[in-house]
Amino acid sequence: MFDENARSYSTPIADIGKNGLIKRLTENFSIHHQETLLGVGDDAAILQPKNFQVISSETFVENIHFNLTYTPLKHLGYKLVVAGISDIVAMNASPTHILISLAVSSKFPVEGLEDIYDGIRKACIIYKLDLIGGDVTTITKGLVLQITAIGQADEKPIQRSGLNKNDLLIVTGDLGGAYAGLTILERERVTFETNPNHKPELENYSYVLERHLKPEARTDIKSILQQLEITPTSMMDISDGLSSALLHLCSANEMGAVVYEEKIPIAPETCLVCEEFNLNPTTIALHGGEDFELLFTIPLNEYEKIKHHPDLSVIGHVVAKDQGVNLIAKGSNEKIPITAQAWKNPS
Amino acid sequence: MFDENARSYSTPIADIGKNGLIKRLTENFSIHHQETLLGVGDDAAILQPKNFQVISSETFVENIHFNLTYTPLKHLGYKLVVAGISDIVAMNASPTHILISLAVSSKFPVEGLEDIYDGIRKACIIYKLDLIGGDVTTITKGLVLQITAIGQADEKPIQRSGLNKNDLLIVTGDLGGAYAGLTILERERVTFETNPNHKPELENYSYVLERHLKPEARTDIKSILQQLEITPTSMMDISDGLSSALLHLCSANEMGAVVYEEKIPIAPETCLVCEEFNLNPTTIALHGGEDFELLFTIPLNEYEKIKHHPDLSVIGHVVAKDQGVNLIAKGSNEKIPITAQAWKNPS
Repeated sequence: MFDENARSYSTPIADIGKNGLIKRLTENFSIHHQETLLGVGDDAAILQPKNFQVISSETFVENIHFNLTYTPLKHLGYKLVVAGISDIVAMNASPTHILISLAVSSKFPVEGLEDIYDGIRKACIIYKLDLIGGDVTTITKGLVLQITAIGQADEKPIQRSGLNKNDLLIVTGDLGGAYAGLTILERERVTFETNPNHKPELENYSYVLERHLKPEARTDIKSILQQLEITPTSMMDISDGLSSALLHLCSANEMGAVVYEEKIPIAPETCLVCEEFNLNPTTIALHGGEDFELLFTIPLNEYEKIKHHPDLSVIGHVVAKDQGVNLIAKGSNEKIPITAQAWKNPS
Repeated sequence: MFDENARSYSTPIADIGKNGLIKRLTENFSIHHQETLLGVGDDAAILQPKNFQVISSETFVENIHFNLTYTPLKHLGYKLVVAGISDIVAMNASPTHILISLAVSSKFPVEGLEDIYDGIRKACIIYKLDLIGGDVTTITKGLVLQITAIGQADEKPIQRSGLNKNDLLIVTGDLGGAYAGLTILERERVTFETNPNHKPELENYSYVLERHLKPEARTDIKSILQQLEITPTSMMDISDGLSSALLHLCSANEMGAVVYEEKIPIAPETCLVCEEFNLNPTTIALHGGEDFELLFTIPLNEYEKIKHHPDLSVIGHVVAKDQGVNLIAKGSNEKIPITAQAWKNPS
């Protein structure tokens, strides 16, 4: 994905100063949108937005959201953008603009930051985003990255609230893969720490590693829904795991939900990792997080439109609030309440 | 300024979780603007913006931008907003919306975050701002606050570029006060560390302390300029110090500048602190930073319109690039080159 020549990490930020740094990091970004009248470099950016605009923020903290031992800096920049625009996509809007803020130790090499910005730039090209601002500040230790993402929509964006009883619950793509990838990387990190000559064996895990290290945002779903002539009644992203998304959606609408375990989409590659590590695939799909897929609802009578789409899975339906939010277990049909995640979960 | 009853700092964030925390922090904020269709609580906020929109980001890092030993949390929240909207004001736009992101240790008490949000809410009321989003994440240690500020303008915002040779350089308010206030607070902190029974004597320093702890954004300048029938040719804020602002403005326009030391506005209270600490008032006006005043330029022939305004000071004029950026010293008329600040300067 990133085939440019490697930089030597030799220039301390202190050598080029804050303004030199901002210039160096942002000078190779292009503008893709007419409404961007002014991008990076002034007190603020200037936009002339159309119709509806959606805005959201996301923060990545070192050793909480990413580990530099196994996260290439270019991928980190790319993933930050994907996480940021995933919230825009979850409103059924098209992402158009981003602002990036960094808090970084002044000892961090400029070239390392350039690598992060290479990843951000790659994402800007692929997703047609204009980088229009941000901030760079010192921090005593570590690295904190923050993105504000902006999107546009012709029609009113789709919110978390709006669903009705009996609506179908739909999930895009598959879940749990990002957590499976993280599990592999964590094993390699621990092995490497005890044996620095250890060579990582990652060939068989490319799908789940990509899900963790280089996820994509579901910018395609908006046009898929248009083609299917479906307007979801509610929508949100699954970046914190399916359980968190389900509880959010139900709570925002004062409703309950029934989800069938056997209907939750999990990739075969994810299941293989689960087998190897003795993990329950359903558990990591529910709680793993960082899959950047979408959860949305449609009226029951639109089932025919969606049932054969290979990338959309009907996982259950909306019920009255007093029935709670439950998983129907595979095989036993046992009803298991779906519970909230703890604060420990970072994203 | 903040007269509510003090909270007891007893609830760890882990007790109420991320979603409970966001709800508790944001539930008392009001919406002031028609174009805010949806605020906090979904994947993203929804705006229906008018005309021109300006957007900017700002980050505050503990022990770099603020010291919790002497910064009350409510004031910290208020100042974060002021710093954020100051960039909007510097485009001659009206600030309307903010997003706030926090990275905080999970051991930090919820009530402390509520105090920060009290300050943010106070600023939202005073400046009529809608809080429309943000993010809360864990961090291993310390506190990082980030604001994205959005503003609207009927006419095209004023940028840093656009000035012409011979234009007059104008500064709002007075400079150096925030640094003088910081100097007092640092002395009290050091004294307190060696003698915990020390009672701070701050009565005589209220002006400079307020400049540091509770600055205001110059949202009034837009209407002052309208009343004077002046459209600046360029404008920026002075939050990084006058020297940094001058060098930015000159560099963006490929011009030089002459600034007369005796014309730089410095409050008598700031001069008294300088005398006590043996500081040069001009030095702290040039390099101190955090005054949140504005620097702008107007054509020479508009001098008559501005010359008697008590809150606007003509400090010099624009010259050709090859003449550099120089200070004409008081008394001696010596020409002293104005130089850039180092990366060490945090904001």
